[in-house]
This record gives sequence, structure tokens and C-alpha cells, in this order.
Amino acid sequence: MQTPHQGHQESAGHGHGHHAPPHDHGHRHVGEDMLSVEEAHRQIMACFAPLEVEEKPILDCLGQTLAIEVRSPLALPPLANSGMDGYAVRRDDIIGASEDSPRNLRVIGLVAAGQVSDQTVEPGTAIRIMTGAPVPSGADTVVPFEETDEINRRSSGRTLADIDIQADLPLGCNVRPAGEDVREGDLVLEAGTVVRSAEIGVLASLGLASARVIRRPLVSVLSTGDELASLGEQLSGGKIYDSNSFSVAASVVAAGGIPKVLGIARDSLEDMHRKLEEVVNSDLLVTSAGVSKGDYDVVKDVLTERGDINFWSVRMRPAKPLAFGMLRGDPVNGTGKPVPLMGLPGNPVSAMVAFEMFARPAIRTMLGRKRLGRPMVEGILTAPIYNSDGRRVYARVEVEKRDGVYYANPTGPQGSNILTSMSRANALAICPDHLSRKDAGEQVDIIMLDWNEEVDI
Amino acid sequence: MQTPHQGHQESAGHGHGHHAPPHDHGHRHVGEDMLSVEEAHRQIMACFAPLEVEEKPILDCLGQTLAIEVRSPLALPPLANSGMDGYAVRRDDIIGASEDSPRNLRVIGLVAAGQVSDQTVEPGTAIRIMTGAPVPSGADTVVPFEETDEINRRSSGRTLADIDIQADLPLGCNVRPAGEDVREGDLVLEAGTVVRSAEIGVLASLGLASARVIRRPLVSVLSTGDELASLGEQLSGGKIYDSNSFSVAASVVAAGGIPKVLGIARDSLEDMHRKLEEVVNSDLLVTSAGVSKGDYDVVKDVLTERGDINFWSVRMRPAKPLAFGMLRGDPVNGTGKPVPLMGLPGNPVSAMVAFEMFARPAIRTMLGRKRLGRPMVEGILTAPIYNSDGRRVYARVEVEKRDGVYYANPTGPQGSNILTSMSRANALAICPDHLSRKDAGEQVDIIMLDWNEEVDI
Repeated sequence: MQTPHQGHQESAGHGHGHHAPPHDHGHRHVGEDMLSVEEAHRQIMACFAPLEVEEKPILDCLGQTLAIEVRSPLALPPLANSGMDGYAVRRDDIIGASEDSPRNLRVIGLVAAGQVSDQTVEPGTAIRIMTGAPVPSGADTVVPFEETDEINRRSSGRTLADIDIQADLPLGCNVRPAGEDVREGDLVLEAGTVVRSAEIGVLASLGLASARVIRRPLVSVLSTGDELASLGEQLSGGKIYDSNSFSVAASVVAAGGIPKVLGIARDSLEDMHRKLEEVVNSDLLVTSAGVSKGDYDVVKDVLTERGDINFWSVRMRPAKPLAFGMLRGDPVNGTGKPVPLMGLPGNPVSAMVAFEMFARPAIRTMLGRKRLGRPMVEGILTAPIYNSDGRRVYARVEVEKRDGVYYANPTGPQGSNILTSMSRANALAICPDHLSRKDAGEQVDIIMLDWNEEVDI
Repeated sequence: MQTPHQGHQESAGHGHGHHAPPHDHGHRHVGEDMLSVEEAHRQIMACFAPLEVEEKPILDCLGQTLAIEVRSPLALPPLANSGMDGYAVRRDDIIGASEDSPRNLRVIGLVAAGQVSDQTVEPGTAIRIMTGAPVPSGADTVVPFEETDEINRRSSGRTLADIDIQADLPLGCNVRPAGEDVREGDLVLEAGTVVRSAEIGVLASLGLASARVIRRPLVSVLSTGDELASLGEQLSGGKIYDSNSFSVAASVVAAGGIPKVLGIARDSLEDMHRKLEEVVNSDLLVTSAGVSKGDYDVVKDVLTERGDINFWSVRMRPAKPLAFGMLRGDPVNGTGKPVPLMGLPGNPVSAMVAFEMFARPAIRTMLGRKRLGRPMVEGILTAPIYNSDGRRVYARVEVEKRDGVYYANPTGPQGSNILTSMSRANALAICPDHLSRKDAGEQVDIIMLDWNEEVDI
């Protein structure tokens, strides 16, 4: 498992009221009362495990993980078959054959793929055979057309009742033995295997139309705040559009979950309670906003009332405020299972980074994935990143590879409200907790957010 | 664009009947009549371009590319707002403030996110402000609660009608200017941008509920051959299950296309013609089997009759046989556009590798992607790969990273029928055309087939 990065394991402090160092304007409680990224990660991940099994058609399993191992119900190939179009022969008949000294064999039949010949290749005979066709009894070797005079015979109008073999091939050449790939009962795919195209092909080749996989988690997504406007609404004084519902829901899809977008809960007890009724049967609720210090936090009041929720400050930037805990099942009906709640900060970038660090690994754990993290590389920073207050900084960068070296280019203003900087980024570069800056030219650890498509290497 | 790899650009030869070198059993025409990987790639890619535009809800656009640039219809944030919970003040009023020498200000009101204050901060006054709330007129700086005596006042039961400011913050501190992220009319996302979670968030933040993206290609998938059995069917003599329909359809999904699985066409003219009727309106038809040399190739006859199709031998292993060309529109009704056809070899691994090298980049081109290839790395081979006949070998390997070095472990028997070797692989290691082998310990170029999830780095 990839754990959060470069961590200096520190326990959360408990001090209060210490004075800020004189150079630290606006950030009095440096590193105090804060949970390390590792500790937040550990506490969160302890609450998640792979979900239940579902059985479904193999094509629908792409990206899920096998819940149980797959053993082959058959041998693959089922019968010894030809790897080439050619002639099935007895190898003893073609020893020493060459273009100058061919061996002439009588052609007694023909077998195509999907057929089984009822003839036997006796000494001095051959059966014309197509790729994939079962090798007839008596034959042990297949000579491709190109090693015979077939083309010349055809062009000169001669019969194919016999054929000249023009090469001495090794015994068994171009014959694929039965069970070469898989024997009946073989372990073919282990439990936990991620189902990709190749695995879907393997399952089909075994005749398996469905597979038993870990089901995808249902993740409810809820934005909170009176300042939020829904898409389609006209913006009026002081409001902003709700982007977190959409970026979080898309991140859920990208992580392999199924999002259920609940929309916006207003800062009222009634609205929060009403929205939480819709969370029943979700595997995770991801909220945004309402979890930092402040007095309008209806969200915190309701969550505290309805669950066992911790409100943390995590020693990271962006995304310091984070709530995590368990919501009790539906209190109205007394039904429903407890639902883990992750309360992301309201700033759009903070929400995305917190999702990346904590919600994505939780979703992937529920999916049965064993590797939870993104790929990491080391690279060279091309502009400084600053760390003003002892938190671990995850700076948005665009990574390029030049001459085998990764370069991390910060994507401009790093304010946690500036979502366009996240859009330009394909990675996060780390400035460790204990450093006040990383300068241009310095080596940094880089978390690749997307790789296959975005980095031209 | 990532073009095929390590190519020695050679034109296709046209010789016939040359003799094989004595050591080359069963492979007479070494490199002759073969198209280089690059040339096949070039000819195929010349037939594809980005598809048409569709407009749809932003959450449904994940993984597609923007067809047109997005300019902002508004400023973001729309109004200058507070980055913290605290007090909106005039900076002139707090110069020199500290815990020992606080500045007392009269609190004239309160503004929450989503509200606009109708009050003005005059000298000597402050307005209590929540994160995200518009900064009231007159104020230019926000002092966080932690830099005031608010907590002490609350705990000692004193009024909040006035407040002590305990820090001298710089002008504009904790104020996010209007348009800090985006100004109205700014180019926010360029045409061709891949829509990820961050882009969906950006679009939502601009109030855009839908986006105009390049539509996904519809890819028909057809297996051919009398030897194929459908899933659910009982295997009888000489038959094997059709796995290519499934592995290819899954690869289409993974590449971003929409598969239309047509099933199995039997080796009869009628069946082939009937299946091809279903291809109308597809953006690509991917077939498997029936394209190599041999005389049961009903497929070739039908395709030649209904289109302008080339049957190639590509200088690669696996996946030498490949067909490519244009099927004419529906000849029955005289309607329909021409449909590009890619005829993959029938062997399961060959079909997957040919798909990877030729169909995937075609699909991604239709999707409007600019980067078509997989990431490549250099690594150390841990077991030899052989090249018997001057073709470029794409060997299935499992790549691991240890101590910063990538190791490519061949996944066992490399027969092109052995699909389980593809399942164990996460990459293809290349033995160039002109080398007869790559030995353990040698450096190889590696095409990463999956990365984010499968390589623990």
C-alpha cells in the first residue's frame, strides 16, 4: 500500500494559546492541534474494507476486482491444434526434406478449425489443416503452405491430391498441445485480480459468461452552504456556483465508485437532516464545506448529533480541515447501516486534494484494490513552493519528461480556491512539513494524478 | 504523438520466392512482403480524425475532450471575499496591533457567505465575516478570529459589540480579490482539453451545466470463424470459446469508445454479409480472424467485395496479419457512410496486441486526444526474449520498480494463443526488428499498458 508521503510521524498536539513566532502573521497555532497526514490516513483507512460480492456479465466487470479465484473448467486449447495453415504430417516422413529434395505425401483430407477429422495420418500421407483445427490422429507436425509446393501446384493447374514438403521441421512444430495454455482445474486468476481487457478475454476463453467481483461503492456527494448556487440558477449577491458536487462526483467515478449527487444542503438544521435521510444505503458520504472552525457550522452540529464524527485539522496544505467518522443509520426508521462520512473542506482545490489523499484510497479499498496510491516519481522543481506554517504542502504542478528527467512546473497561484490551477496540473509536488520551501532546481517527490494520457513520455 | 517504437523505417518489400537461410526453419520469407509497424501505423492513422461535437451534462463528459475553448461568462470569485472566518477591517486601523497592544474596533455587523452586507466599515469599526462572504465596502483586510480576543470574550461572557485585534496583518490579507482566479471573458479551458474531475469542477464553478465535447466513437466488434463457440454454448469437437469479442470490446471501453458486440460471423458468405449490415453508422469495425494467408478466408472474400481492404503482413510479433481499409456504405440501401475496418488476427494475444498498436490510437484520435500512446519507460529485462525472424517483438512482461529501476519480467510462454500471459502482463517489452534476442540484464524499451493501478511505485 502506498501510504501518505514523506511523513514525519507526529502525534497530534494538544497545546492551546501558544504565541505565534513573530514572523508568522495570521497563523498562530503552527502545527499544533493538528493531525499528521499519516495519522488521519490511518484512522480513516481503518474504517474501510472490501465490499460484498456481486456476480455480473464479464464485460460489466472491467475495473473491478475478482472476489474469488478462478479455476479453469476446461483445458485450453481443448485439443492439440495447428498453429499455422498447412499440412498435418508425421515428422518421420519429412526428415531431410528441402526445396531441392522434397518429400511427396498423399493428401487424404482436409480439416478446418472447428472440425474434427475422422481420418488418421498414416505414413506417406498428409491432411491439409487450417490454423486452429485439431491435429488429426497420426500427425505430429504441421508444415506451413509456404514450405510446400502448393502455390506452384495451384498456379500450374496441378492437383492437390498430393503435395511436396520442402522443409524438415522439428517434431511438434506448429502444433499447439492440448492444455498448453491452461489445464483443467488450473488456477487461472487469483482472487483480488483487477479485471482488465486481458482478464475479460481469459474469462471468455474459459466459457465463463459472468464473474464474481467486489461490487462498486455507492458514494453520496453533498455540498453545504448558503452561499452556493445550483447550476442553471442566476448568481445573486455573494453567491458562487457549487462546483464541489461535480468535481467530487467525477472523482468518485474516476476512482471506481458510483456517485449519488444529493445537491446542496443549506445552512439549516432542517435541510441538513433532510439531505442525510437520502444517505441511507450509501457506502460513504462525502460532504464539502462546513467542517472548519467558525460559528455558522450547522453542518457540524447536525453531524455531531447524528454520528460519531471527528473534526480534524490535518497538517497539510491545502485541505487542513477534515471531518471523518460514522453516521448512525437512519434514526427515523431505526434502520440502515452506519455510513462513513468524510467532510472535505469547502475550497474547491482543498476538496479535491483531500478527496485524493483520503477518499480515493477509501473507495479503492472498498473496491478490493490492493494498491491504493498513485504512482510517484522524483523530479526537478522548476519554480519554488513555499511552506509558511509547518504543514505538508501538496503543490499543483504540471509534470513533463525531458531527456529522461521529470520536471514539475507549478501551475501558478496556489490559493485553495483557485480551481483552474488544479485543471492545469497533472500531479502534486510535495514540500515536506519541516521545510519552509523547496526551490527551483531541487528534487521533489511527485504524486502523479494522471499519467497514461497526460504525460507525453 | 507517440509513434510506434524503435522503428527502422523500411518500405514493404515485394520479392517472391527467395530462399530461406538454412537456419530458418518454417519461416521462409524473412521480412519480405511485410509492412513495417510504422508504415502500417501511418496508413491507418491517416484515415482517422476527431469526430463531431456533442453537447451534454458536464458529469457525463469525463474522459472526453472539449470540442471548443471555454471562456468564462463571469469573474471568479464574483466579488472580493474573505479567505477566513474573522473580522473585516480597514488595515489602517490595525497598524502595530499585537497581543500586548491590541486595537479595539466597534463591531457594526456580520456577514455570512452568500450574503452581501449593506453596511460600510468606517474607521474604528469592523464587520464580523465568514469565509467566502463578500468583503463589505470600506474594509480591505480580514483578521482571523485567532488573531482577536473573541474566544476570551466568549468564555468570559463579554459582549462581541467590540473586538480586540491582536495582530498587524498586511493590507489585503485574507481578502481574495474579485476575478483572482478568472476574469470575465478569460480563456479558461482550451479546445482539446481532456475533461477530468478538475475540469468538471472548473466548468461547474463557471455555472456551465453542459459542455461541448468530441463524441465517443461507436466501434462494432465482430469475431469470425466456424471454430468459435458462444459463451453458454457447450463446447463440441474442435471448438473454442470466442474470447476476442470480449477482450476487444473491453479494450474499446478502456480506450474510450463504445463497443457494439456483433457476435460471431460463421465462415459463410451469407453470415458475413448479414453481420456487415449491422455495421452501418459505426465509426470503426474491428474484426478478428480470417485475415491471414489461407484458403478458408470467406472473410477476405466478403471484405474485398464490400470495401477497399488491404491485407497486410506487419513486421511484428505477435500480430503479423492485419487487414485495414474502408468498407463501403450499406450497399443494399445505397446509404450509410464508409466505415473503416481493422481486421485483427484471430489469436487472442495477437488480437490484443494489434488492437493496442493500431486500434487504440485510432479510437483516441477519434476522441480528439492529442497524446495517443502509452507511457514508455526503459527497464532491465530479467529473462531473454527471442526474435527468430526479423520482426519486432512485443513481449508480454510484468514490470516492477525496485530501488528506482524498472524490471521487466517476461510472463512465461509467449505463444500468441496464450492469453493468460497477457493477463499476467502490465507492459510490453520490445526486441527490435534487427536483433535476434534481448538477454537478461539488457536494457529494453517498455510500453506500459497500465500504470496507475498495477505498478506499485
